[in-house]
Amino acid sequence: MSTPAAEALLDVIRDWGADRLFTCPGSTEAAVLDALVTRKDVELVLTTHEAVAVSMADGLARVTRKPTVAYLHANVGLTNGLSHLYAAQLAYSPVVVLNGIKASSIQAREGFTTGRRMRDLVHQYVKSDWQSLTTEAIPEDVNRAFRTAVTEPAGPVWVALSQDLLESPAPVPVPEVHGFSFDSRTAPSPGAVRAAADLLRSAERPLLVAGSELARVGAVADLVALSEQLAAPVVHEDRRGFERPGFPTDHPNFRGQYEIGHPLVQEADLLVFLGARVFNEFEPAKVAPLPAGVPIVHSHTDPRHVAMIYGVDVGLVGDQQLVLQALSAALPAAADRVVPAALPRPHRTPSTGGALTASDVVDVITESLRGVALVGDATTAGGILQQRAHQHGGDDYFVSTSGSLGWGMGAALGIQMGMPDRRVAAVLGDGVFQFGAPALWSAARSGLPVTYVVINNERYAAVGAALRRFDGQAVERGDFPGIDIAGPNIADISTGFGVPGQRVDTLADLRESLEAARTVDHPTLIEVMTDPTHFGP
Amino acid sequence: MSTPAAEALLDVIRDWGADRLFTCPGSTEAAVLDALVTRKDVELVLTTHEAVAVSMADGLARVTRKPTVAYLHANVGLTNGLSHLYAAQLAYSPVVVLNGIKASSIQAREGFTTGRRMRDLVHQYVKSDWQSLTTEAIPEDVNRAFRTAVTEPAGPVWVALSQDLLESPAPVPVPEVHGFSFDSRTAPSPGAVRAAADLLRSAERPLLVAGSELARVGAVADLVALSEQLAAPVVHEDRRGFERPGFPTDHPNFRGQYEIGHPLVQEADLLVFLGARVFNEFEPAKVAPLPAGVPIVHSHTDPRHVAMIYGVDVGLVGDQQLVLQALSAALPAAADRVVPAALPRPHRTPSTGGALTASDVVDVITESLRGVALVGDATTAGGILQQRAHQHGGDDYFVSTSGSLGWGMGAALGIQMGMPDRRVAAVLGDGVFQFGAPALWSAARSGLPVTYVVINNERYAAVGAALRRFDGQAVERGDFPGIDIAGPNIADISTGFGVPGQRVDTLADLRESLEAARTVDHPTLIEVMTDPTHFGP
Repeated sequence: MSTPAAEALLDVIRDWGADRLFTCPGSTEAAVLDALVTRKDVELVLTTHEAVAVSMADGLARVTRKPTVAYLHANVGLTNGLSHLYAAQLAYSPVVVLNGIKASSIQAREGFTTGRRMRDLVHQYVKSDWQSLTTEAIPEDVNRAFRTAVTEPAGPVWVALSQDLLESPAPVPVPEVHGFSFDSRTAPSPGAVRAAADLLRSAERPLLVAGSELARVGAVADLVALSEQLAAPVVHEDRRGFERPGFPTDHPNFRGQYEIGHPLVQEADLLVFLGARVFNEFEPAKVAPLPAGVPIVHSHTDPRHVAMIYGVDVGLVGDQQLVLQALSAALPAAADRVVPAALPRPHRTPSTGGALTASDVVDVITESLRGVALVGDATTAGGILQQRAHQHGGDDYFVSTSGSLGWGMGAALGIQMGMPDRRVAAVLGDGVFQFGAPALWSAARSGLPVTYVVINNERYAAVGAALRRFDGQAVERGDFPGIDIAGPNIADISTGFGVPGQRVDTLADLRESLEAARTVDHPTLIEVMTDPTHFGP
Repeated sequence: MSTPAAEALLDVIRDWGADRLFTCPGSTEAAVLDALVTRKDVELVLTTHEAVAVSMADGLARVTRKPTVAYLHANVGLTNGLSHLYAAQLAYSPVVVLNGIKASSIQAREGFTTGRRMRDLVHQYVKSDWQSLTTEAIPEDVNRAFRTAVTEPAGPVWVALSQDLLESPAPVPVPEVHGFSFDSRTAPSPGAVRAAADLLRSAERPLLVAGSELARVGAVADLVALSEQLAAPVVHEDRRGFERPGFPTDHPNFRGQYEIGHPLVQEADLLVFLGARVFNEFEPAKVAPLPAGVPIVHSHTDPRHVAMIYGVDVGLVGDQQLVLQALSAALPAAADRVVPAALPRPHRTPSTGGALTASDVVDVITESLRGVALVGDATTAGGILQQRAHQHGGDDYFVSTSGSLGWGMGAALGIQMGMPDRRVAAVLGDGVFQFGAPALWSAARSGLPVTYVVINNERYAAVGAALRRFDGQAVERGDFPGIDIAGPNIADISTGFGVPGQRVDTLADLRESLEAARTVDHPTLIEVMTDPTHFGP
């Protein structure tokens, strides 16, 4: 009784290995929902907000490195999902967004929840946007969407499916998916590899900068090998471009995170950026972010990023694993060099009373949750967490560079789905929490044992920090408008959603709660109260 | 110490009488926040989600009939606000959306939270979209935004303001706002009025259809006068176009709501649609929504709607008050006619045990909250509520035709702000609740005494109804995928946000809670549990 188009759509999804369909549905998706009554090869993952559907699909794609599907409803569902679709785009996540839209005749008549320019809404966030024009074309269009999403550089794709086309009884062809899946990676130009290798051979103090792309394409081990071959130190990319670790923080050659003031950046005679953005700027830099006169090698899968802002000496476009392997092959087997010693770690004394600081809390989190995959979505505490979290592999730490608050709450669930044998925790700010709260419904429903830790400073501290930088009346009078979001008991809200919540305000209680959370088989939330007057570093 | 551009921006806002700035801010708005430290002529209304900022601004504009301001942050803040901006657009709400965006140099470099095509995102939801190009232009651009927003047909306007331009110390001119405010209403063509009057004079059984536009422009009394002059019955417009009452439900000439099966529609020899959409279609109609062969007069402020789908015999474009007054003047002072008697009200027996139905609950709500302004945002129960709620004036009942879930939670706060002497209650579905939950933060913070009533059937019943219409495997097996959203204790979540919540599951308890809520001076939430197996009429 289901329609051929709905069945074929699900066949294509299944054949691409995307066996879950994340959705917050509406009436336009009835044919697909109906087909799912009997077939079990694609799992319907219900969510209660499109932002959750998109971020779950994104999180799952990040760890499985396979395409995933978010099925959004109408124009309002699409717009609700856009901010996290931006996150997926920045992460090169192959999220296929299907958009159930009203019947063709209603669209022309500007009926309920239609849009005259749906493609305008999504165009800048996807590799391709298309609205199927006939029932027969639906499987082909969706198959092409998968093909385009996974073709490197990967990324989200959007296809709109009108209700009338999906509900039509017309027979449809089902594409042979395997013919559309191919190795789309590219190797860098040999000449560019030689030029980069020449620079590396002649450099005395090269610094390798590990970008997020390495983790995405599974090239962390390749950078470890190159770093050892060169006896060169490695730093993670600049905070604002960082999405996941491109190098193990426990490797002897690891030396922290790129910033212009870093001694190794200042001393380097060659900078090699691998799969990193140079840079994802937050504000116009007051200090040039690159040292003057130092040669730059910049490699990225996506040519958009190479020499986008700053000129390079050598650009290397291609898959980061192939780039690293090509560089390794072009260089001597061993370098006659010693990696500069690491700086001593700054000694920190945890607070012994009064309000907790983000720094105190992050220390306890990173210590208690060692070995747990962390998802960061905390505007103020996020930078500290990123620097201190133990990150052995590319799947140990995840953030988004989108600034799309609440992303981590859904993404953590998708990441946990994709890594059923690991523990996953999401570290959130209290401002972030309100953007992602419906993810708790999904957490409760799925039972996925994600630990949510909310660092509650009762403030939009990032806005406070901006007012501090602005250095005007707010600073003069100690009156910071627009930042006080105190009030909610986040632990109680979480419990209301079905995710047991607990509020703590001491480090000892935090530690105890985190240890307990690691052993339970369901999601939990820990809200830790911190100093509202501290706007971060 | 504040910047001239920020001060001038606030001057323009104040001079247009929009003395509140609804925002969920970011660092790009620092200059404006800083200026608000000392000046108190514009109130900063902090929200914790852009959807709340936009829907509050929309609600306030609907009742004050004056422009309001939502100040959104970056690309992610804009996309978070889009679904409710669509609601504002459909309601012709003059919401001026200011969008704080990153500094110009960062935009070009695709920096953090920038967009290359910001205007594409918003274009289809606003009357005008512009990004200020210089500091000097900011006050002029914002002033023009207000002018365009309030010019009839009114509607949202968008202006993007780059951080660097706002933070510049450059002096700026401040426009004399009063010169930009003018009576932009238009009267209908006299010839069209004569043609409509001729039809009305010769009709024996005319039916007047009251659209939402009448309430927006304050023309409900004019329709009452015309209805009495003509001795003609009046129905509210079709459910899918209805946003607010264009005619009092307690007037002797009121005869319910337009639908093709309504006896007066079937018997009419002339249909006069006033400020209504004909129609906002939900799905392709199985039955033609207009009776065959009956002449149609269709009047709307916005020419887009006249004869958009169905041909008319007379179209009347212009302000609905001026249209009604022109028709009245062109017609005899009294008609020799008797308004057809109202049909007897269907007798309903409330449930006496077991799960409550939406119908039972709506009856108690409309009875207990008589005199309270209602905001409806309940997909399944909404239709019942709309038919039964007592609506004496245009500001007694509000819904959105946008399908943008959660709108009512923020809108109710804006409406309450605009009507401080009335009680306001929002009637919500449980699915809706999860989309609008951050509005509870604003409710708690503002202390506005809005009563939230959540009808919790633990289902996306509208999706269930769609599957029932699809009549496939779901119906055959009694298995409806994608609709079960049971789990949350919404009353507890509300309490966690600082809005005392209470869950009830009997009509007696509901009645008692509603009576109590009417007397308190703070927001409250009542969650009433209803039958999850009932998908609505």
